[in-house]
Formats: sequence, structure tokens, C-alpha cells
Amino acid sequence: MAARLPAALERVIGALQALPGIGPKSAARIAFSLLGGRSADPEVLGQSLLDLRRNLVECAQCMNVAEASPCPICADPRRNQYQILVVEEPLDVVAFERTSDITGVYHVLHGVLNPVEGIGPERLRVRQLVERLRLLAPKEVELILATNPSLEGEATATYLHRAVEELTHVKVTRIARGLPVGGDLEYADEVTLSQALKGRRQY
Amino acid sequence: MAARLPAALERVIGALQALPGIGPKSAARIAFSLLGGRSADPEVLGQSLLDLRRNLVECAQCMNVAEASPCPICADPRRNQYQILVVEEPLDVVAFERTSDITGVYHVLHGVLNPVEGIGPERLRVRQLVERLRLLAPKEVELILATNPSLEGEATATYLHRAVEELTHVKVTRIARGLPVGGDLEYADEVTLSQALKGRRQY
Repeated sequence: MAARLPAALERVIGALQALPGIGPKSAARIAFSLLGGRSADPEVLGQSLLDLRRNLVECAQCMNVAEASPCPICADPRRNQYQILVVEEPLDVVAFERTSDITGVYHVLHGVLNPVEGIGPERLRVRQLVERLRLLAPKEVELILATNPSLEGEATATYLHRAVEELTHVKVTRIARGLPVGGDLEYADEVTLSQALKGRRQY
Repeated sequence: MAARLPAALERVIGALQALPGIGPKSAARIAFSLLGGRSADPEVLGQSLLDLRRNLVECAQCMNVAEASPCPICADPRRNQYQILVVEEPLDVVAFERTSDITGVYHVLHGVLNPVEGIGPERLRVRQLVERLRLLAPKEVELILATNPSLEGEATATYLHRAVEELTHVKVTRIARGLPVGGDLEYADEVTLSQALKGRRQY
């Protein structure tokens, strides 16, 4: 009276369950919809997943995921290389690009400081940011800290501010708290992001 | 000022969005979590998806998905081949197997009648069921209709009852309405399923 599913199905369900926001029931639903051809084509999704990491690199300048290094934003001659917006994740770059307000470039940290989860500055792209800023001296640079208005995001911004304090050519600003505290930057609408950007203040 | 993501990422996000219950935001979240190695390994998930259909067949007797035909349930000599439980989907078999109440075998329809979506009996495994029942004559067979207690499930049960009416060796029963009408069989707990099964009544 085994209630087992075929191994090929169990493997897919197991792998889907490891995805954020997908529980055992959803995983099973998705697996059967794939099998029955009622949603995505499993071969197309499977191949796209196998290609995911193969075709992507981290831009050596801004650390964003891209098809080439430097990425199209860093390589754009119209961009101001002396205004650097620091964000937590690649999706935050997409969010800011939607506002069309950014004339500068980005630096992607790939996370936030989180002592509880053991994420210190060495796990983020902080060293690369400091090096990048050093190389831009003595020209003045504006560093806009655009981490999330969450506990971790604020702590990370404070940490970064201190980490670059000795670099006198760097002016550090923080995006305005137009964003609700505890919210998530990535889900903010363009107007809120624009306002937050315009209201940025010097540390 | 392009807000584009790398093509490899867009492809993954696009394919994930086609899955049931996953919107654009979730798809992006999942794609980045895969990329950053924070959830499932994209290669493992990708390969499991490519293998999904390759390693599965439909059992020639019960139409359930399996690694071999006949499936382990149909091939089990302890199972009563003259008690056939008709269900909508393979997941329903898993649900009934959890009750340990089934001494018979299954027949998986792979769907329900749904005139609005243009799903008629020819899209389900109805012809195969009728053929299977014919081959079992003249021995008496109990056909337990265990489609969902939804509008479509009830309509499908009624249709099946009429479709086998001429087969005098087939006694048709319907699982009891212990299940809340409009509910989904697959999410029912074992006790409710057991009760529904025990309370089945002759048509």
C-alpha cells in the first residue's frame, strides 16, 4: 500500500519545494501541471535553468549580474561614473532603472548585514566598493546608499558610511525615508522611489 | 536607461511565470534565489525537469503516471482488480493510498468534464475505462466514482454512471459527500477521505 510517486516526479517535487514560497502542496501541483502540459513546458524551463549560471557573469565594476563585464550600464558613456547608487540586490537595479532618474551607476552588495544569520561585510561586495571608490580619487564621488529601509538595510548603510569615512573625496547620501520602514524596496512604485531619491540627505 | 535583465534570467523568469500560482514578482524572486544559490540548485532542478517526461509512462491499465506499465498498484497481486476507484488526477491516488483503505485498484481520468473549457469525455480516459470494464465481464465489478465533490466532479460522475449503465456486471457507487461541496479532494485529510469512502452509496 505504498503511497509513493514515481522517482522522477519525487525529484522534481523535492527540487521545487526548495524554492522560496513553494510548499509541498504547491510543488506537487506544479509538478503535475508540468507533466500534464498544462503550464510551462518542463523541457523549456529545465533547459533555461541549466543555462542560467552558464550565461551570466558578475560585472567586475558594479557586481551586478550581466551577460558581459562591464555590464551595459557601466559601459554606457552617458552614465556618470562618479555617482554610485549602492543597492542590496540585482532586482533593486531594475526597480531604479524603471524610474529613469538614475544618471549614475550602481554597486550591488548581494545582500545586507545580518548578524543573526551570520552575514558580515566579508559576505557582501563591500571590499570591492571601497577599492572602486579609492580608484576614483581625487575626483569627488557621490555615494548614494539605497539599501532597504529595514533594520538590516539601515545597519548596512551605517556600516558603509563608516567604512568610507576616511575617503575624503566621497560624499555619502542616503535615500529619503519616503519608503515605509520595514518595507521592501523592490516592491515600491516608481513615484515613491523617485521621491525617496530626490529627498536624499547628506550623512 | 534600459531596465532589462540579462536574457538568461528573463528566460527563467518567463518560464517560471507560466507555472500555476507563480506571478511575475515571485518568478523574479525565485530566479534570483536560484542564481545566488540561496534555494534549490538550478542545475539539479533543471536536470530533474528534463528527466521528468523521459522517465515516466502512463500505466496501460489504470492510466496513472508510473515508471513502468503496469504500475506497482495494478501489478500488486493482493489488490482486488474488481474494485476500481475512479479519480481525476494522479495526486488523488496518492491521497487515497494514504488512507490504507483501498484494497482495489484505480482509474485515473486525467481531468474532469468542463464544457466551458471545452473538455469533453474524449479528452479524459473514459473510453479506456469502459473497455477495461468490458474485459472484466461477466465477473461483478464495483466502480467507485471518486471525482471531486465540485460541480465538474459531480457532472463527470453522473456522466460516467450513464456511460457504464449498459454494463450489467458493473455496480456503480459514489463516495459519500463527507467532503465539503466545492472543496478539493487532494487537500482532504485521511479521516475525511476514509469516512467519505465508507459512506459510499449505490447510484
